Amino acid sequence: MMQNKLPLLITTGEPAGIGMDVVLLLAAENKLQDFSRPIWVTADADAITERAKELTTAGVLKVCPSWQTVDAHIDADDFSEQMSMNTTHSDDAFILLHTPCSAPVISGQINTSNSAMVAKQLDIAHKLAFNKTVAAIVTGPLQKSALIDADIKLLDGTMFSGHTEFFMQQSGCKKVVMMLANQAMKVALVTTHLALKDIPAVITAENVRQTVQIVIDDMREKFGLTQPRILVCGLNPHAGEGGHLGMEEIEIINPVLQEFIDAGVDISEAMPADTLFTPRHLANCDAVIAMYHDQGLPVLKSHGFGDTVNLTLGLPYIRTSVDHGTALDLAGRGGASATSLYQALNMANEMANKSLTR
Amino acid sequence: MMQNKLPLLITTGEPAGIGMDVVLLLAAENKLQDFSRPIWVTADADAITERAKELTTAGVLKVCPSWQTVDAHIDADDFSEQMSMNTTHSDDAFILLHTPCSAPVISGQINTSNSAMVAKQLDIAHKLAFNKTVAAIVTGPLQKSALIDADIKLLDGTMFSGHTEFFMQQSGCKKVVMMLANQAMKVALVTTHLALKDIPAVITAENVRQTVQIVIDDMREKFGLTQPRILVCGLNPHAGEGGHLGMEEIEIINPVLQEFIDAGVDISEAMPADTLFTPRHLANCDAVIAMYHDQGLPVLKSHGFGDTVNLTLGLPYIRTSVDHGTALDLAGRGGASATSLYQALNMANEMANKSLTR
Repeated sequence: MMQNKLPLLITTGEPAGIGMDVVLLLAAENKLQDFSRPIWVTADADAITERAKELTTAGVLKVCPSWQTVDAHIDADDFSEQMSMNTTHSDDAFILLHTPCSAPVISGQINTSNSAMVAKQLDIAHKLAFNKTVAAIVTGPLQKSALIDADIKLLDGTMFSGHTEFFMQQSGCKKVVMMLANQAMKVALVTTHLALKDIPAVITAENVRQTVQIVIDDMREKFGLTQPRILVCGLNPHAGEGGHLGMEEIEIINPVLQEFIDAGVDISEAMPADTLFTPRHLANCDAVIAMYHDQGLPVLKSHGFGDTVNLTLGLPYIRTSVDHGTALDLAGRGGASATSLYQALNMANEMANKSLTR
Repeated sequence: MMQNKLPLLITTGEPAGIGMDVVLLLAAENKLQDFSRPIWVTADADAITERAKELTTAGVLKVCPSWQTVDAHIDADDFSEQMSMNTTHSDDAFILLHTPCSAPVISGQINTSNSAMVAKQLDIAHKLAFNKTVAAIVTGPLQKSALIDADIKLLDGTMFSGHTEFFMQQSGCKKVVMMLANQAMKVALVTTHLALKDIPAVITAENVRQTVQIVIDDMREKFGLTQPRILVCGLNPHAGEGGHLGMEEIEIINPVLQEFIDAGVDISEAMPADTLFTPRHLANCDAVIAMYHDQGLPVLKSHGFGDTVNLTLGLPYIRTSVDHGTALDLAGRGGASATSLYQALNMANEMANKSLTR
C-alpha cells in the first residue's frame, strides 16, 4: 500500500537547531509510520547520526531510530529508480536524502558555512514537489539571519527572506497566501508581517480578490472541498459599522466579495471579527480569511498553540511547516516538542489524500 | 444577611427592547436570589407588568414573577429610609424603581417619546452608585439612535453617545477603560471603536500610561487583587519584532511599561498577541491589555460569546453591562437569552464582594 503513495518530504532546516531532533523523536516513537506514506528527510548524514547519539546519551530517545541514507543527487537520471528501490525494501523509519554540510555541526551553534546547505534542502524540496516525486513538503525551522549573513540570495537576486518567498520564486508564483490551521479552525491572511500602520494601504481590491481566489482554489484542489464555505473579516472593528468606523468594507472589501457571491461562491460579506470567531459561526465554515496577522492568529493560537500548522496556499504543491523556531538552546539536549512537526505532517498527508492531483 | 449588603441596580434601558424581558426571565427562575443582595431594577411599572403578561401568555415565563414597586424619587429626603424598609420586608424577586415612560410601550417598536426615560434611568443609576446607595450598576441595552433622534444631550452639551460617555461625564472622569471579561480571560483595551487606520495616532505614551494605571487601580480596588498580574500586547505583529515590524513598541509602549515595572508592578513588556493569548500565558495572568478592538475581542469572544461581560474601569463605581443589543424582534415574544445579564450581575456581585470600598 505504502508504495502506491507519494512520499512526504521533511526539510530539517538549520542543522544547529531542533529540526533534526523533532524528526528523530517521531521516528523513535514509530510515529512517522502513521501516515502510510514513505517519509523522506533532508539532512546531513553525519550530523543527524551525531544528533541521534546525543539525544540517546541524554536519555531523550529511548531507542535510536534507524533510517536509510541515499545521496540526494536528485538530478541524476536514475534518482527516481534508486528511490523506488529504497522505499520498496526498507523497514526504516525514513529515507535520509543526504545533503552535506560544509562544516561540522555543533548543536545550538549557528555556523554560516552551513547556510548554503539549508538553502540546498529547500531547492531539493522544491524540485521534488514541483515534478511530483513527493506529495508534499513539510519544512522544519531555519534561522533567517544565518542565510542573510551567508549572503544567500533568492532567484530574483534579492536577499533570502524566508521559506515562502523562496518557494514562490522557484515556482514563478506572483502571490501566495499564508494560512494557519489547527483542529479548531483554518485562518488565511490577506496581509501578514506588516506594521499595523502599513496595513490599510495594502488592503486593495486586487489583493483581496487574489487572496480569496487562492483560498477558494486551494480549498478545492488541496482540501478536496468542491464548495468551500468561507467567512471573511472586515478590516475595521464591527466591520466598519456601516461606514462609521472605516470605509474599507464598503469601498473595497464588500464589492470584491460580492463578485464571488455573484459567481456562486459560498462566502460571506465582511463580518465583525468578534462575531465571526464565535463557535456558532466557526461551526459552519471551512476557512476564515482575516485581513491581518493580529486579527486572526491570536484567536487561532489561543485554541491550541502546539497544534498549529502553517500552510502556504497558492504554490503548485502542498507545503506545510512547523510553527516553531530553531530553539537553539534545546538542540541535542531534549525539551523540544515534536507535536508541531507531527501536526504539519498530518495536515500535509490529509491534504495529499484529498488533493485532486496527488 | 442580605440586608447588610448594598443592592445591585439593573437599568433595563430601551423599553421596546429585551432589557425587561431578560430581568423577568431571571426573576421567574429565582436566579436573582443567587447574589445574596437586593436587586433593584429601573423600568416603567406599567410597561414591565405588560411585558410580564406578554411573556407569560406566550409561554416564555412558566410563572409570572412578583416584585415590589416604589417611585424612584431618589432625591426625596426619605428615599433611603423608604428603600431600606422595602428591602427588609420583601420576599419579591426585585424592587422596581418606577421610571415612568411618556408614551405607552409597544414591544419591538422604538418610540422616541420614551428616550428621555432611558436617559433618566442612567441618571438614577449614576446618582445611586455615586453616593454608594447601590454597590454596582448593571446596564441593559439601549438604542443609541433613539436617544440621538430625541436630541438627548450629554452633560457637556454634545450628543448622547453611549452609556460609558454618560457615566464618564456625570462622574467627571477624563478617561475610562473598556474591559471585556468571561471565564477564560479579562481583556482591557487602550483604544476601542476606531477605524484601523486611526489607531496608531492614538497609541501615545499618555494614553498607554493612563490605561495601564486605571487597569492596575481597578484590579486592586474592584477585584481585590493587591498585586495584579498584567500582560500587554504590542501594537504590531510579533510586538514589532525588534523594530522590523513597527517602532511603537520601542518608542512608546515599552518605555511606559518599564516605568511600571520599575515601580514594582507585575506587568509584561509588549508581547506578540499570538503568544500572549495562549493557555500557557493566560494561566498566569489576571488581565490582558490589548492595543485595539480586533486584537483582543475576537479571541475573548471565541471562548464564550454568551458569557462575555462588558466592564467600565476608571469610574468611581462598579459598572458592568450585558453584551447584547435591544433585539427588538424578540421583545415580548421569547427567544432572548438572559445568560449575559446573569453573567453581568455575577461579575458585578463578585467585584462588589471583593471591592475595597463596598
